[in-house]
Amino acid sequence: MAKYILFKAQDLKDYIVRFLIHLDVPEADAQITAEILVAADLRGIESHGLIRLNSYYGTRLREGWIEPRSPLQTISETPTTLVVDGGNGLGMVVAQKTMTRCIQKAQESNICFASVRNSNHYGIAGYYAMMALPHGMIGISLTNSHPLVAPTYGRKAILGTNPIAVAVPAGKEHPYVLDMATSIVPIGRITVYEKASKNIPEGWGIDLKGQVTVDPSAVLEGGALMPLGGVDILRGYKGYGLSMLVDIFSGILSGAACGTDIANPTENRVGANVGHFFAAIKVDAFRPLIDFEAQMDHLVQMLKESPKAVGQERIFIAGEKEFELAERYEREGVPVMDEVVKMLAQGGQEIGVPWDLEPIGEKVEQAKLR
Amino acid sequence: MAKYILFKAQDLKDYIVRFLIHLDVPEADAQITAEILVAADLRGIESHGLIRLNSYYGTRLREGWIEPRSPLQTISETPTTLVVDGGNGLGMVVAQKTMTRCIQKAQESNICFASVRNSNHYGIAGYYAMMALPHGMIGISLTNSHPLVAPTYGRKAILGTNPIAVAVPAGKEHPYVLDMATSIVPIGRITVYEKASKNIPEGWGIDLKGQVTVDPSAVLEGGALMPLGGVDILRGYKGYGLSMLVDIFSGILSGAACGTDIANPTENRVGANVGHFFAAIKVDAFRPLIDFEAQMDHLVQMLKESPKAVGQERIFIAGEKEFELAERYEREGVPVMDEVVKMLAQGGQEIGVPWDLEPIGEKVEQAKLR
Repeated sequence: MAKYILFKAQDLKDYIVRFLIHLDVPEADAQITAEILVAADLRGIESHGLIRLNSYYGTRLREGWIEPRSPLQTISETPTTLVVDGGNGLGMVVAQKTMTRCIQKAQESNICFASVRNSNHYGIAGYYAMMALPHGMIGISLTNSHPLVAPTYGRKAILGTNPIAVAVPAGKEHPYVLDMATSIVPIGRITVYEKASKNIPEGWGIDLKGQVTVDPSAVLEGGALMPLGGVDILRGYKGYGLSMLVDIFSGILSGAACGTDIANPTENRVGANVGHFFAAIKVDAFRPLIDFEAQMDHLVQMLKESPKAVGQERIFIAGEKEFELAERYEREGVPVMDEVVKMLAQGGQEIGVPWDLEPIGEKVEQAKLR
Repeated sequence: MAKYILFKAQDLKDYIVRFLIHLDVPEADAQITAEILVAADLRGIESHGLIRLNSYYGTRLREGWIEPRSPLQTISETPTTLVVDGGNGLGMVVAQKTMTRCIQKAQESNICFASVRNSNHYGIAGYYAMMALPHGMIGISLTNSHPLVAPTYGRKAILGTNPIAVAVPAGKEHPYVLDMATSIVPIGRITVYEKASKNIPEGWGIDLKGQVTVDPSAVLEGGALMPLGGVDILRGYKGYGLSMLVDIFSGILSGAACGTDIANPTENRVGANVGHFFAAIKVDAFRPLIDFEAQMDHLVQMLKESPKAVGQERIFIAGEKEFELAERYEREGVPVMDEVVKMLAQGGQEIGVPWDLEPIGEKVEQAKLR
C-alpha cells in the first residue's frame, strides 16, 4: 500500500519556482521548469516530476554540474533548421525555449527541425511535442540519455532509454500523444520490483552475461535494459534500431555526445552533454486542418470502437490515459507519494527553502506492479 | 530443405521490365519497378521481391485494380511540403518519383516532407529512404497498408503492418538503414510456420478472441498480428502507437484511406488508396557532413565493439546484414526459390511473356524458422 498526499498543482509549481530561484535559476526559467515538472506528475508520469526536483536538478545545480542560467547559443540557423548549444543549462529550459523557436519558424516555413547539444535531462519528452498542438502543428521531441540499454546480442548498456514523443492534433477527440522510451521499461521500473522483492517479467532486462533474467538486482548490478521488442525472436532489434535512431537525431545531428560518451552527472560530476531533437510540422501545409482533424477523429473512433479482446473493456489511444489523469488531478489535487514529500521536505530544509505546502487531501492506493 | 535457383540481378530486372511493359506499364516506369523489386531480393527481403510480380502486381494490373500509367498529380506544394495523388498507380513508381522530387526540394529548403494518397503497395519501404543517401541526406519512408494488426486490448485487425524506414549516411561504415514493420512479424512469417506445421513463438499473434496463441492457423483465420512489443506487460502498446503514427503520416496527412478503410485489392477488387510519407533532410544544414559521418562511424563502432552476450559473436547495425547480402548476391547471383520460379514461369506463360532466363547456379539451404 502506498500513501499519497494531494496538493494543488499551482502550489507545487510555486514551490519549485522558489526552490530554483534560490539556486540562481532566473525566475522565468524557474517558471518553465516548474510547469514541466508538474505536468509530469499531472499526467501520471511521477518518475519524471517532483521526485527529481532535489535528487536530480537540485543536486546538479548546487554542485555546478548544470549552469543555472542556461546560456543558450544559436550555432546555425536556416529557415527550416536550427542548431542550438544549450550551454549545459537546465534541460527543461533549453528544450522549451528551442521548441518555442521551432514552432515560430514553422509558422513561416511549415516545417522546422531543431537539434540541440550540450544540454541535460529534460523531463518528459511529450511536453515539448505537445507544445505544437495549439498551433495546429504536429510536434516531435526526442532526446538521448546516459547508457542503460544493451544492443541486441550485446551485454553492456551502450544506448539510453532514448524516448520518442510525437503529438498530433485531433478534432473532438483528445490529441494523439505518443511518449515512449525505446526500452521496454525505464530503469525506475526495475528498481520498483527490486524494492518489492519481486521478479521482473521475462524480457525486460539482462544480467551481466547478456542473458535474460527475472532478477531485478541482476539487471541493476552490471546488467542492462532490453530494447522494445525484447529478445531476438520477438524482434528486439527493432527497438534497438529505434533507440539508435533517437541517438542519431539528438546526439549526432547536433554534435552532442552519443552512446557511452554521455555522462551520468551524478556519477561523473559533470554536465551530461545530452542532445535533443525537436520538430514542428504545420498540418495545413498538407491539407486543411479541419479535414485532418476530422479524419484523426475517425481513426481514433475506429480503433476505440473495435471489438475488445476477451476480458478487456476498453482500447486506448496514445496519451488518452494521461489526459484523463491530468483532468482529474487538476480537480482533485496532484498525488505525491508520502516518501517523496518527506524527501522534498528534507531537501528544502537543507538548502533553506522550507517545504510549507498545505495538502488538500490524501489517499492510500494499492501499489501496482506492472 | 529449400532449393534456390540463382540468377543475375540484371536478367531478373530485364524480365520484370518485359513483363510490365506487356501489361501497359510505360518502359521508364517498368524500369523503376524492376529496380525496386530486385533490390528486395538482393537485400534478402524475398517476401517483397519477385514473388509478388505476378501474384500481386500482375494480377492487379490485368484486373484494372491498378492504373498501369500511374498518373501522378500534385495536389499542393510549398518549398518544404508536397502532397501527391498517386492516381491509383503502381506504388513503386508513385513512391520513387515522389521521393525524387522530395530530395530535389530538400536541396533548396534543407527539409522536405511529401505525403501521398491514392497509391498502392510500394514494395520495400527502405528503398525510398536509401535514395536520400547519395545526396548527403537522411531519408524517411513510411506507408500504411491493409489491416492485419490489432490494437492493444483489441481482437480485430484495424491497422496495417505499417513499416518505418529511415536511412542515415555514415562515413567508412555502412549507412544506418532501419526498415521495420511496426508489427512483430509480417503476416508472411505466420504463413511460413503454418506451412511447416510448427507453432509460432508466443506473442506474435492473437486468435479471434484476442488471446495470444501459438497456433498459426488461429492467427490467419480471424485472428490478428500483434504490434511490436507484443503483450501489454512487454509494452506492446508502444508498437501499436508507432503503427498508428505511420497511419497518421501516410494516411491522414495526405487524405488517403486509413485503418480499416484501406482495401485489400485482391479481396475488394479495387485500388487500395494506400498513403505513403517521405522525408528528405540535408545533413549539412545542421553540421558539416564529414563531421556527422565521422560521429556516425564512432557510434557504429562503439556498438559493434561492445561486449557480446554469452553465445553471441557479433552485434549488428540496422541494415548491415542487408548490405552484406546485396554485395554477395550481386556477385554470386540472386537466389529465387524453386517454387517461385515455377510460379513465375506459369504466370509468364499465361500472359505471354515467357520466363526464359538462364540460371547461373543453384543451391539448397535449410529453411530457417525464425
